[in-house]
Amino acid sequence: MIDETHDAKLTSWVESAQGHADFPIQNLPLGIFSREGAEPRPGTAIGNQILDLRGIAHLLPPRSGTAIAGPTLNGLLGLPADERRALRQRLSTLLSDTRHAAALGPYMHPAAECIMHLPARVGDYTDFYVGIHHATNIGKLLRPTPLLPNYKWIPIGYHGRASSIRVSGVPVVRPVGQQRLPDTVEPLVAPTDRLDLELELGVWVGGGNALGSPIPISDAHTHIAGLTLLNDWSARDVQAWEYQPLGPFLAKNFHTTISPWIVTAEALEPFRVPQAPRPDGDPRPLPYLWDANDQARGAFAIELEVAMTSAAMRDQGMEPLRLSLSDARAMYWTAAQMVAHHTVNGCNLMAGDLLGTGTISTACPSGLGSLMEITAGGMEPITLPTGEQRTFLLDGDEILISGTARAEGFAPIGFGSCRATIVSHA
Amino acid sequence: MIDETHDAKLTSWVESAQGHADFPIQNLPLGIFSREGAEPRPGTAIGNQILDLRGIAHLLPPRSGTAIAGPTLNGLLGLPADERRALRQRLSTLLSDTRHAAALGPYMHPAAECIMHLPARVGDYTDFYVGIHHATNIGKLLRPTPLLPNYKWIPIGYHGRASSIRVSGVPVVRPVGQQRLPDTVEPLVAPTDRLDLELELGVWVGGGNALGSPIPISDAHTHIAGLTLLNDWSARDVQAWEYQPLGPFLAKNFHTTISPWIVTAEALEPFRVPQAPRPDGDPRPLPYLWDANDQARGAFAIELEVAMTSAAMRDQGMEPLRLSLSDARAMYWTAAQMVAHHTVNGCNLMAGDLLGTGTISTACPSGLGSLMEITAGGMEPITLPTGEQRTFLLDGDEILISGTARAEGFAPIGFGSCRATIVSHA
Repeated sequence: MIDETHDAKLTSWVESAQGHADFPIQNLPLGIFSREGAEPRPGTAIGNQILDLRGIAHLLPPRSGTAIAGPTLNGLLGLPADERRALRQRLSTLLSDTRHAAALGPYMHPAAECIMHLPARVGDYTDFYVGIHHATNIGKLLRPTPLLPNYKWIPIGYHGRASSIRVSGVPVVRPVGQQRLPDTVEPLVAPTDRLDLELELGVWVGGGNALGSPIPISDAHTHIAGLTLLNDWSARDVQAWEYQPLGPFLAKNFHTTISPWIVTAEALEPFRVPQAPRPDGDPRPLPYLWDANDQARGAFAIELEVAMTSAAMRDQGMEPLRLSLSDARAMYWTAAQMVAHHTVNGCNLMAGDLLGTGTISTACPSGLGSLMEITAGGMEPITLPTGEQRTFLLDGDEILISGTARAEGFAPIGFGSCRATIVSHA
Repeated sequence: MIDETHDAKLTSWVESAQGHADFPIQNLPLGIFSREGAEPRPGTAIGNQILDLRGIAHLLPPRSGTAIAGPTLNGLLGLPADERRALRQRLSTLLSDTRHAAALGPYMHPAAECIMHLPARVGDYTDFYVGIHHATNIGKLLRPTPLLPNYKWIPIGYHGRASSIRVSGVPVVRPVGQQRLPDTVEPLVAPTDRLDLELELGVWVGGGNALGSPIPISDAHTHIAGLTLLNDWSARDVQAWEYQPLGPFLAKNFHTTISPWIVTAEALEPFRVPQAPRPDGDPRPLPYLWDANDQARGAFAIELEVAMTSAAMRDQGMEPLRLSLSDARAMYWTAAQMVAHHTVNGCNLMAGDLLGTGTISTACPSGLGSLMEITAGGMEPITLPTGEQRTFLLDGDEILISGTARAEGFAPIGFGSCRATIVSHA
C-alpha cells in the first residue's frame, strides 16, 4: 500500500534528510545503535542523524513502543505487519511536522558518532540461490549442464551460520581451511587463496509460523519485514574440496557481512515491480509457489553495486573501483516464494531470522555479483587503477556493497553501507 | 579425569537411583524441566526423581548457582569445564550423603509429574556425517564410488535448522514437499512417502570461541559439554530431488528430536575409549585434526538402540521392535575433531550450540541407523510382530532411541528417552 509516507514531496525538519542518497524521510529504516557509554537501542536513520526510538517510545503506537524496549529488533519484527506500518506512519509524522522538532531534538544523534550493531538476534540464517545468472555462470565452471534439473522448480536454499553474521565495518579474517590443489591427491591446510565476495540481499523475517504450519504464498509477503544488503564471503578453494555431498560449510561460515539498517517492506512498497516473465519453456511454479497477486509485484527495483578499494588505492586517495552494477530484478524466485518454500514442509520461521537471496548477477558482464564470475574462475584478472591485478581478494582489500531502490515519481531510498576489509589470518 | 563421583559403589539416598538404567548417581545429567504452574528451570535427574537446581542454588558452587538462574542451560554451558566439574562433584556429594536428604527433599520431584523442555537455546545447529558405515551404505545407493574423495580427510558437516529442534515426545508432523517420481519430468507436491529416522548423537557445545580464533584440537574436548540422543528425521523423496547442489534442506529441517538430558562430558569420562585404528591405507588426519592424547581416548563406548512401535502394535500391547543396535565407537571422526574442524576457519561456536554426529551405523546388518539402510532404499521391507510391513514410517509409528554408556568396573549410565510419533500432515 502506497500512502502519504511515500510522497516524494514530503520533507523533514531534519535538514540533512533533504535529498539524502540513503535516508530521506521516505525511508525510515530500523536498526540498533549505541553511543559511547550507552546501551544499544533501536533507532531510525534520517539524513545523517539517528533518532533514538527508545527515548521517544511514549510518542509511538503502544505495541511498537513496548516492542522496542530491548537491545534487538526481534520484538518489533514479531509484531503483525500492520503494527510496523503504524510505526512508520507515526515516525513519518514526527519527522516531517516541525512542531515535533523540539520534543525529538534531544533524541537525535549524529550517525557519525554512533556505532551500529546487528539489528536482530538471528535465530536461523538461510541462504538461497535465486540469482539464476549466478547459478548459470557458476554451473558453467563446474559441469556440462550448468543448471541442475531442479533449479526452475525449487527455490534452492541451504542453512547458513547465524553466529558469524556481523554488521558492516567488522574486518573479515582470511580463513584457513582444507584445500586440495589441482593435480594433487593430499589436501593441505592454509589460508584461502581464493577469497571471494557474493553480492546478496538479506530478507528479515517478520511474524513467523508455528512448527508444522506452512505459510501460504498468499500470506508470505506479510512475513517479510524488510531487506538489507548482504555479503556472503566465500573461500572458493575450501568450497571446491568440501562441498560434496552436503553443500558449502567452512567455505562460507567464517563471516557474513550485512548492512545494519533494515529497509522495511513498507518503505519498499513503491519499488515493488512485476517479476520478469519467465523465459518461454520455463515451467510455471507449482501452486504453493504461485500467487497471481503477489507475483505481479513480487520483485524489487533495487540497483546493487559492488566496489572495491585496495590498500594501495586507499593510500593514494583513490575512489573505490566499481566491480559490478547489478539489479534485484534478476532474481528468478521472489522473497515471498522463498518464504513459502521454506515453510511448505512445516519448518518454522521466527521473527528475526535472516534469508539470503544468493548472489544476484544480471545477464550482463557488468552485472556479475562475485569475483568467481567476474574473473572467470580466476582466469581473467581485473586491473585496478593502481595497475595492481586481482583475481581474488588480498589482505587490505575493502569491499563495499551499496543499494538504491528507484521508481519513477518517488524519492530514491538507499541501504547504507555494507563494507568490510580483509585482514590476515594471524 | 575419573574421580570419586564415578565410583560404582557410590549410592544415593534417593532409593530409585540404585541400579537405575539411565540415572544412577554416577550420571547426574542436566536438563530443563517444569511442573504444572511453575516456570521451566534447571534440574538433574536422579533415579525416577528430578532435583530442582534453582531451589538449591545456594548449596552449589557460586558460579554454577548464578548460571542456573534462567530458563535455559546456556549460562551453565558457557562456564569453563572445571566449573561444570565442580558442580558435578557438589551434586554427587549432596545426593549421596544422607545428611543432605532433609534439605533437598522439598526440591525433589517425581519425573513422571514433570515436563521436559529443550535444555538450551540452540544458537546454531550443525549436523556432521561422521558415521562412515552410514556414509558408505548411502553412497552405494547413489553412486559407483560410495565414499567421496574428501570423506577420509574432512569431518563432513553442514548447517541444520535450530528452530525446529524439539525434545522427546513432541509428535512429528509428516512433511509435505516437492518430489519427483521415477520416470517423470515434473515434480509434484505431496506428503512424503519415504519418511525415515536417523540415529545420531548430539554434542552440546560448552565454552565457545571468538570469531576468527580457531579451537585447537588439544583444547577441543574442553568445549564438549555433554551428549544427547538425536533423531534427524528425513524425507528421502524430498531429499533426492532437492539436495543438489547445496545439500539437504527441507528434507531435514521440519523436525529434529533430541533427548532432553545433557549427559555431561564429566559423567562420560569412564566411557572414553581409544578410537578404533583407521584401516590400513586410510590417511592420517591432518595436523589440525590430530592430537595424540585426545585421539587415544577420543571415542565413547555408548550402545545405541533404535526401536519402533506401530499403532497396531501399541493397540495390542506389544513391546517395541528393535530395529538396530549400534555403537558410538563406529564414528570415523571424534567429537573433538568435529569441534576443531568446525572452527579451523575462525567460525565461532557458542555455548549451547548443538552438533549432530550424523547417522551412526555399525558394519553389521543389525547396527544400521536408518530405514534407508535397513530396507536397502525401500526395496526390502521389514516385518513387524503384527505381520505389518514397513519400508518407511507410517502415521502412528513411534520411534524410540535409547543409549547406554558401558565400561568394565563402572555403573552403566543412560540417556533417557528420545522418542516421537509420526502424525498426519493435516
